[in-house]
Amino acid sequence: MVLLDQRRLPDEEVELRCATTPELVAAIRTLAVRGAPAIGIAAAYGYAAAARRGEDLSEAAALLAGSRPTAVNLAWALDEMGRCDGDPAERAQEIHREEVERCRRMAEHAATLLEPGTRALTHCNAGGLATGGYGTAVGALRTAWEHGLLAHVLVDETRPLLQGSRLTAWELEEAGIPHSVIADSAAGLMMARGEVDAVLTGADRIAANGDTANKIGTYSLAVLAVHHGIPLYVVAPSSTVDLSTATGAEIPIEERPGDEVTARFAARNPAFDVTPAELVAAIVTEHGVHRAPYSESLAGAVVA
Amino acid sequence: MVLLDQRRLPDEEVELRCATTPELVAAIRTLAVRGAPAIGIAAAYGYAAAARRGEDLSEAAALLAGSRPTAVNLAWALDEMGRCDGDPAERAQEIHREEVERCRRMAEHAATLLEPGTRALTHCNAGGLATGGYGTAVGALRTAWEHGLLAHVLVDETRPLLQGSRLTAWELEEAGIPHSVIADSAAGLMMARGEVDAVLTGADRIAANGDTANKIGTYSLAVLAVHHGIPLYVVAPSSTVDLSTATGAEIPIEERPGDEVTARFAARNPAFDVTPAELVAAIVTEHGVHRAPYSESLAGAVVA
Repeated sequence: MVLLDQRRLPDEEVELRCATTPELVAAIRTLAVRGAPAIGIAAAYGYAAAARRGEDLSEAAALLAGSRPTAVNLAWALDEMGRCDGDPAERAQEIHREEVERCRRMAEHAATLLEPGTRALTHCNAGGLATGGYGTAVGALRTAWEHGLLAHVLVDETRPLLQGSRLTAWELEEAGIPHSVIADSAAGLMMARGEVDAVLTGADRIAANGDTANKIGTYSLAVLAVHHGIPLYVVAPSSTVDLSTATGAEIPIEERPGDEVTARFAARNPAFDVTPAELVAAIVTEHGVHRAPYSESLAGAVVA
Repeated sequence: MVLLDQRRLPDEEVELRCATTPELVAAIRTLAVRGAPAIGIAAAYGYAAAARRGEDLSEAAALLAGSRPTAVNLAWALDEMGRCDGDPAERAQEIHREEVERCRRMAEHAATLLEPGTRALTHCNAGGLATGGYGTAVGALRTAWEHGLLAHVLVDETRPLLQGSRLTAWELEEAGIPHSVIADSAAGLMMARGEVDAVLTGADRIAANGDTANKIGTYSLAVLAVHHGIPLYVVAPSSTVDLSTATGAEIPIEERPGDEVTARFAARNPAFDVTPAELVAAIVTEHGVHRAPYSESLAGAVVA
């Protein structure tokens, strides 16, 4: 299995070969491949590869499922693979194709939320890299741009690993969409100056009540957005909606090594946070735009 | 004039020699010396050095005053030097001594605001490095620690130039105060988890109505703090209070080069933001704890 090593972007486009399940687990854990839908897709391909190699599939699935805790897409994709009666390789490709197709559909739904001239702000990378192609929040920005609705994108650099300034800026540059990177802490000033019309983010897990886990900093953005009367839209495939998780309090938050923040001093490095549903203006899946109360509107948002 | 080059900290303790006024201007502009009180003190010494070299003093003062726009301490210190009848070198030393003495006095006032067991959060570096010694917000933390009131400090790393993880963590380590560095975007999560009892920051300029300019990100912290019912205290010497600036809208916000954020993609890099007075729980100067309405409580906060 060959992955584009996202740790090396944008400086180098390097392929990473994962010949064994532990190698793929390490690639997911160290963020060579990252983004909730993308790690689900990678796990599906990894499961198919394990099947081809004749490995113990429940062991391989357990290893892959344990690689990262927050995104539910990993468990979802492995569950789909486990229930597959046919060729695992074909099923993995199908999951991949369907996830990209979901992105395109949700992008059209999300675009209906934006006015012409929208100046958007996004956090982390919810782009093609994170989703096996096209993107969730960035996919919505692509579609909005094609429809002439988008004026500019502010990109949070997204510390500590800079997925915004390394990956999202790279994707927006390739797409020809005007953008500027800002320090995460500058988002409040930009909102106060009236330079942000909407915040769009992806998600790693959406609980049944709409509470949304996403990259650390999303919660701060949501509080700031509500304070300034700006809508925050979560754009994610239904594979990210976890109806078996009642509220955000049940979502495990990954704590990553402190040296990702600073090599010299003690640091804490929670990689995700949970945004309470009441701070989310709408959740967009491939099924459409879901509004509060999310416990009702998300109930139908399962993979069709 | 010899400065500790703060750009090289904490990896190296290197002295920077400024033999001319333009060299000192460059040192201030490139943040070899930074922090509102510290650049005021450096400008005072620079003025004294220009006097010793027989330079045109109004030209030297104009050069120094123009080195950075937001902190008012620069103009204040040069104004003090311009009104000095005696030995400029002695006056510069006196300004330096008085600023440190103000820090010690405001730290005692600030400590009265904190309960035993306080878990504080601070942003940027408002420590000894920023103030010619002891520190404003970090000075308050030092005094609170000595009084047994402080349990732990969360230190925002403070992108793009990492004054928190490079300078504040270094100072807290030297002082033996327990601390953890966090990504700026993690402050909201820490507040939501109930791990922050008070936010303490310095200031670069405080308008007559209490609106406070400080390092980019302070405004976001203030919105988050109010959302969580946590007090944000601004700790600053009266040399930072600018009664001639009516509100924050009149404070010039420095826009620094985008390549401090990212060398590869377009970036915007506002270095400061303004926190409206209504989000500030109290402003502490060497004169005491000032509460709203600040237009009244700050009126007496001029250098005695």
